[in-house]
Amino acid sequence: MGKVRGGIERYASISRETSRPGVINLNPIQRGGILSGEAREILTSFGDGYSMCDFCMKGRIDLIKKPPVSDFLEDLASFLGMDIVRLANRCRDAIFVSLMGLKRSRGRSVLLVDGNAHYSTYLAAEAAGLEVVEIPNTGYPEFRVRLEAYGEAMDKVEDERGELPLAVLLTHADPHYGNLSDPRPVAEACRRRGVPFILNAAYTAGVMPVDGKKLGVDILVSSGHKSWASSGPVGILALREEVAEEVLLRSSRFPEKELYLLGCPVLGVALATLMASFPTVVERVEHWGEEVEKARWLVEQMERIEGVRQLGGRPKEHTLICFETPGFHGIASKHKRRGFFLYEELKNRGIVGIQPGLTRRIKLNTYGLSQEELEKVARAFQEIAGKYGLEVR
Amino acid sequence: MGKVRGGIERYASISRETSRPGVINLNPIQRGGILSGEAREILTSFGDGYSMCDFCMKGRIDLIKKPPVSDFLEDLASFLGMDIVRLANRCRDAIFVSLMGLKRSRGRSVLLVDGNAHYSTYLAAEAAGLEVVEIPNTGYPEFRVRLEAYGEAMDKVEDERGELPLAVLLTHADPHYGNLSDPRPVAEACRRRGVPFILNAAYTAGVMPVDGKKLGVDILVSSGHKSWASSGPVGILALREEVAEEVLLRSSRFPEKELYLLGCPVLGVALATLMASFPTVVERVEHWGEEVEKARWLVEQMERIEGVRQLGGRPKEHTLICFETPGFHGIASKHKRRGFFLYEELKNRGIVGIQPGLTRRIKLNTYGLSQEELEKVARAFQEIAGKYGLEVR
Repeated sequence: MGKVRGGIERYASISRETSRPGVINLNPIQRGGILSGEAREILTSFGDGYSMCDFCMKGRIDLIKKPPVSDFLEDLASFLGMDIVRLANRCRDAIFVSLMGLKRSRGRSVLLVDGNAHYSTYLAAEAAGLEVVEIPNTGYPEFRVRLEAYGEAMDKVEDERGELPLAVLLTHADPHYGNLSDPRPVAEACRRRGVPFILNAAYTAGVMPVDGKKLGVDILVSSGHKSWASSGPVGILALREEVAEEVLLRSSRFPEKELYLLGCPVLGVALATLMASFPTVVERVEHWGEEVEKARWLVEQMERIEGVRQLGGRPKEHTLICFETPGFHGIASKHKRRGFFLYEELKNRGIVGIQPGLTRRIKLNTYGLSQEELEKVARAFQEIAGKYGLEVR
Repeated sequence: MGKVRGGIERYASISRETSRPGVINLNPIQRGGILSGEAREILTSFGDGYSMCDFCMKGRIDLIKKPPVSDFLEDLASFLGMDIVRLANRCRDAIFVSLMGLKRSRGRSVLLVDGNAHYSTYLAAEAAGLEVVEIPNTGYPEFRVRLEAYGEAMDKVEDERGELPLAVLLTHADPHYGNLSDPRPVAEACRRRGVPFILNAAYTAGVMPVDGKKLGVDILVSSGHKSWASSGPVGILALREEVAEEVLLRSSRFPEKELYLLGCPVLGVALATLMASFPTVVERVEHWGEEVEKARWLVEQMERIEGVRQLGGRPKEHTLICFETPGFHGIASKHKRRGFFLYEELKNRGIVGIQPGLTRRIKLNTYGLSQEELEKVARAFQEIAGKYGLEVR
């Protein structure tokens, strides 16, 4: 083998400062993925990579009976109001697999998406050889997805290219502003035209109630490490029967294997923690209303600071929040630590998760924080504002 | 959301009987993935899905400096004698990504593989829209890959289709017989024809010394959960500079993102444990000779049992071993538990990992077992054989 430079011993003792008890993590991608107590307890016994595979008989994780993986996937499908669930590497892979399968079967070339879609949606489409047509959002300051525009946009694709889009994707709650979009009008426009409707529920399923059937969704994708208290990486691919055969196309040479999933996803701790957290998740989505209330409370507190304004739809319907913070940006421009001052001031107060260096706009997520923790967060921002001479009403 | 049937609380308390102290696990896919002590120690602090992303500045895990991910990937590349390393979901995804990138750049249509390739190699090729041409192995009982046949096989593809293969793949140690194939003659045949050479090192890199440069490899793929003592899932994609640009093609819309990787692999505990185990791995590959000696010792002991014969090349050069066991198969045909009797007899002796139900041929892996554990394994098989009237020499 090749030669490795010295000092590699340090990799054996990496540590994570944000895991210290009492630290509040506001990272917008992390709140819904923090492990449940039950999940954390099984980490050691299921830590080995193939820990779920001890009693695998058929080389397919979805068929494993011990631990009860196959039962679990059925329960997960019921919970999501869908017919069939498979696990994928990540949410984006679930989108990619869906697009590859649909394209193979239907041969169309356009994916219609909302203008707030995650970057990985564009990558999945490009990797699948599709062109993306985007419905722009309404722009500053609300950046709403124009749900009523989907029908017309599909017809326009058909007029211009002689065929409808291969599929339509809506980002249920988006990663930029945390706007929650109602899937029903989009589903209805898709249903009327026979176009499959994909809902990217990475930020919704697992933290709030989502019923794919009621919402008229054909393909629902989500992210275990983002919203299901799983170690991940693991994507959830939930399908209606009508599209399952297309998406879960079998390999020609190994007909028991699903082609675009590249066979079994080989999950150990990712699946073990997804399962262990499931009872917690089923219970916690019932409290979504309270979570939204807490988010709104924090918006109110933050907007007491000079210049701070919540972007995205008002009032908040999701716990991921984007603020413009021109006051902090002004401080950064004169501070010797530049944009890092805000991150560091927060960290000194036991708060992490605001992207280091950013001050013009900041994003955070209040999901699962207690009222006491939220008060600490509000106080910290207000204190920092005051310290640098911003007005706090 | 949908309705979930009762009894889901049981998912919160799944347990893993094979993780009990003292249990010997012979599972051929599991031996190289068992966590190091250091990896097991950091499970709790890095258990959350985005645990490596606390200080991510650019949305790319390979660029993270804290923990030192970017340094680690450089050291990993050096260790493998390669130029650049990226992490993928699994080893098979690393193959798929390579094929997609090469195909996009070179536009050819055939992947040439050895007849002992893992099923996922075929799936990756089919999903990438390639045809697989296979060099058959030598058949029973050795099933060797005919390394000298690669050059001729490439020329035959060229004669018949007017173009050389897009790439050539060799399975370094195969999953069926544990035959170790010397990549050098294949590399040389590829080099002369300008065809990229992919080495599937899922069962070799991480347990034995592998130097991609010395072996003439263009793309080396491996599996963290199979051979690097990582929780996984995580694939290692190690590239020579000459092919890196083709494989790591950027997205047209998000030029900082690598298209076929679908952006960042989003790894938490999989990467944390891969890093924590790295010093152990660097050290342990030096002891590969002793591991092979132990495998040979077990072969000798097993072949004392009536009818047992090691399949694959002799003597063993790898710790994954396939035996034909017609004696056990004969017992199974009359036993009330049928093929499960062997699994159960072993389990009663604290030994797991032989696929439940199989008795005609069995596979196991001795990697990392102590001499004492191996003696326990040999004794168990011999005892079971004796109990059911097979002769033990």
